[in-house]
Amino acid sequence: MNKIEHIGIAVKDITAATTIYEALLKTKVYKTESVASEHVTTAFLQTGPNKIELLEATSADSAIAKFIEKKGEGIHHIAFDVIDIHAEMARLKAEGFILLNEEPKRGADNKLVCFVHPKGTNGVLIELCQSVNE
Amino acid sequence: MNKIEHIGIAVKDITAATTIYEALLKTKVYKTESVASEHVTTAFLQTGPNKIELLEATSADSAIAKFIEKKGEGIHHIAFDVIDIHAEMARLKAEGFILLNEEPKRGADNKLVCFVHPKGTNGVLIELCQSVNE
Repeated sequence: MNKIEHIGIAVKDITAATTIYEALLKTKVYKTESVASEHVTTAFLQTGPNKIELLEATSADSAIAKFIEKKGEGIHHIAFDVIDIHAEMARLKAEGFILLNEEPKRGADNKLVCFVHPKGTNGVLIELCQSVNE
Repeated sequence: MNKIEHIGIAVKDITAATTIYEALLKTKVYKTESVASEHVTTAFLQTGPNKIELLEATSADSAIAKFIEKKGEGIHHIAFDVIDIHAEMARLKAEGFILLNEEPKRGADNKLVCFVHPKGTNGVLIELCQSVNE
């Protein structure tokens, strides 16, 4: 497990949140992307070696919509950069962590991702995140 | 605003959480510290250029105790590394962000810190964090 790749923040209005986070971090969003399978629109800002990912739900079925309904806007997950997601998934499974997907799935920003259940990590939703070369 | 200096995670039992996060990140806690003024005990883990700070309340008056009572365990704040905290505080104030302290205060891990109200940042408690040379 390496650096924090990004922190995902669940927001109601990604346009308004973009204005706020561009002012806060004094940098512009460098990429926006919709992930149809997750029913989200995302916007990325770079801050040093790390990223902030703003997430807005595009459907009431989205995990982001449900999160906001339950907890309000706020930090949704922490993603850690990994070199070999399959190896890291096997290691964490052996350590007793509960993985939310058995195989890596395709995430935003050219990544293979896997989520770890927050029940085993003090309420924190953890994402493993491996870069994919196109 | 530079890299994510650390992510603060509010936990009920820092000993149990240390075991979990040492296994998750495959690294040992490199520092524990009590901050009497904040009524917390902290434990730090390094992950690449970033840190995870586990926080346990030492008193019911602690912001961490209140956070857990209201929201349960989970991510409490994101801290960004800044070079000049006074300049950054002035910049954010001018941008309309609400600062929770007028002057930088002393935090854990040899830092000067200032918090930004989550009301203006989509529910995310932001910490500015400047390293202090002893």
